[in-house]
Amino acid sequence: MKVGQGHYRSIWVEDGAVRIIDQTRLPHEFVVVTLGTLEEAATAIRDMWVRGAPLIGATAAYGVAIAMREDASDAGLARAHEVLVKTRPTAVNLRWALEEMARFLMPLAPSARADAAMSRAAGIADEDVAINAAIGTHGLGIIREIAERKGGVVNILTHCNAGWLATVDWGTATAPIYKAHLAGIAVHVWVDETRPRNQGAHLTAWEMASHGISHKLIVDNAGGHLMQHGEVDMVIVGTDRTTAQGDVCNKIGTYLKALAARDNGVPFYVALPSPTIDWRVRDGVREIPIEERSGDEVSFVQGKLADGTVGRLRISPEATPAANPAFDVTPARLVTGLITERGVAPATADGLAAMFPDREGQ
Amino acid sequence: MKVGQGHYRSIWVEDGAVRIIDQTRLPHEFVVVTLGTLEEAATAIRDMWVRGAPLIGATAAYGVAIAMREDASDAGLARAHEVLVKTRPTAVNLRWALEEMARFLMPLAPSARADAAMSRAAGIADEDVAINAAIGTHGLGIIREIAERKGGVVNILTHCNAGWLATVDWGTATAPIYKAHLAGIAVHVWVDETRPRNQGAHLTAWEMASHGISHKLIVDNAGGHLMQHGEVDMVIVGTDRTTAQGDVCNKIGTYLKALAARDNGVPFYVALPSPTIDWRVRDGVREIPIEERSGDEVSFVQGKLADGTVGRLRISPEATPAANPAFDVTPARLVTGLITERGVAPATADGLAAMFPDREGQ
Repeated sequence: MKVGQGHYRSIWVEDGAVRIIDQTRLPHEFVVVTLGTLEEAATAIRDMWVRGAPLIGATAAYGVAIAMREDASDAGLARAHEVLVKTRPTAVNLRWALEEMARFLMPLAPSARADAAMSRAAGIADEDVAINAAIGTHGLGIIREIAERKGGVVNILTHCNAGWLATVDWGTATAPIYKAHLAGIAVHVWVDETRPRNQGAHLTAWEMASHGISHKLIVDNAGGHLMQHGEVDMVIVGTDRTTAQGDVCNKIGTYLKALAARDNGVPFYVALPSPTIDWRVRDGVREIPIEERSGDEVSFVQGKLADGTVGRLRISPEATPAANPAFDVTPARLVTGLITERGVAPATADGLAAMFPDREGQ
Repeated sequence: MKVGQGHYRSIWVEDGAVRIIDQTRLPHEFVVVTLGTLEEAATAIRDMWVRGAPLIGATAAYGVAIAMREDASDAGLARAHEVLVKTRPTAVNLRWALEEMARFLMPLAPSARADAAMSRAAGIADEDVAINAAIGTHGLGIIREIAERKGGVVNILTHCNAGWLATVDWGTATAPIYKAHLAGIAVHVWVDETRPRNQGAHLTAWEMASHGISHKLIVDNAGGHLMQHGEVDMVIVGTDRTTAQGDVCNKIGTYLKALAARDNGVPFYVALPSPTIDWRVRDGVREIPIEERSGDEVSFVQGKLADGTVGRLRISPEATPAANPAFDVTPARLVTGLITERGVAPATADGLAAMFPDREGQ
């Protein structure tokens, strides 16, 4: 999407070199990094210069391609897999992309692997872009209907960053917003700060500002009040994992927004590429274990200091411990619809099964 | 309450001098300030060294008393009123305390006013302490019942700071917690950070740590998840303004916690001194105008920097504006009970009228 006068993806090839944006520096600095070695690709994933499941997968695929330039032997391929898979042990997309690259490259002669790997990595990236563009088109239909019914600016609340920075392009929750903006529909986005890691304030706000979409930052506490006063027409969020019955595991605090949406008759949509559906899980609240992260993420806040450098400060007494559950589960009963690349499915077991008859039971 | 080995109120007289805690320095520094002149008392209120309606009222009363030492004439009394009333123009308790001091002092000879004013200010402070102690006793009954039914630690979630720092002693929402702790009941407090001004992280966490009450800081996003998993036995919050039908206007985000409590069968209590009931207002969502504060409170966060000084940092892009509604209204239907100095009232027009037959219609 747009950054200033340019158009960017979150990972791209320029003069043969793989480039990414160091997202840990956003929103205060826009730094493009060239990934020249396997080790640099691994560092980019491990240190979260890139984040978001689809982008991690694409970066891993390009990481294998970069490794093939250094050593295209079977041993080189095995080593690339070994180095990259350790960078984020729980990332399903990372593992999938590495397996896909190995499946594709192993039958080829080593001399053909470097070029083929770049091509397959580009294919993985392009597939992600196509999926998100399709999500955007289906979500655009919903926004267009609200715009026509309401006849004014459509106010959309989003939580965390399910934007183009978390994918290769378009994003998931943001794809319908970008498509609506392109279609000339007036949209305004309420950007939840998303404590503790502030992905809303750091990344979604930056995306909106960079692309020129009208938006305002709010604290995570504010959404309910805005909905009570008719200032939110719809909510769109992403998801880390969706169950077969439509429960949605997403960044902590999503559930509170879904409750407020239900209490005020505001439609609550979740945008997702269908591979994030975990068909083996039904009851998300009971079955999905929630990652408990370091309390320091709660006790400290990162940002730009008065002298222009990026640093952090402590908000609480040193004697106060913090708890930091990273995700919560929004029960399907609170979800108006699941916006997938195939269309908008009801958040029910039957609705998902009907839209993905080829996937159910996987 | 306790701070280290000492016991403190939020305003007290020591060797004839009026002392307060500079709350803007908490939780990183504990600084006691002596209010020696009318101007110092006015500064303490204006610059929010003291905050919370009851404490502002008590400080204003002591401010008048300090002024009487300088000039006890009718003109001196008028001037004290004029200087102090401007410090926080919307504070109802401030106005009430100043009117009460004038009513009490005007009939007295100027030579008697200085001592009488100190005595009446102490009375106003003691009345607040007595009200909050009574709230604590009524709330203790609720906590004791949960402890007996459950047979383990009682987990209590609170939002913002309705603690002793916001009153003269005990606090409102915290009074039942302190009373339970004193009674030997095991309690654990989930302290909501309370963005944007972080009163939970700055003040409630400090109160709990200082008094030795088991607690953990959480982001405002986390409470719903904790309730889904049975980790919250009750919610207690304060209120800025309660309507005649029991709607509760309190710090932004309170409504989201009330929704989560309802969705999970967790009792949601509001602790309040009855003077905060506004008998002229019924429907809080429709009738109470919500203060919109500076967006800078959202875009910047204050805390302790690496070098030990207190400063602030920016969390969002400079091109991103922020909206900052300061309060929200929790409809009475979500409130389990109103803990007042007279007892626990149902959050209904009839329930409040029955408990305060002498007040209704005021």
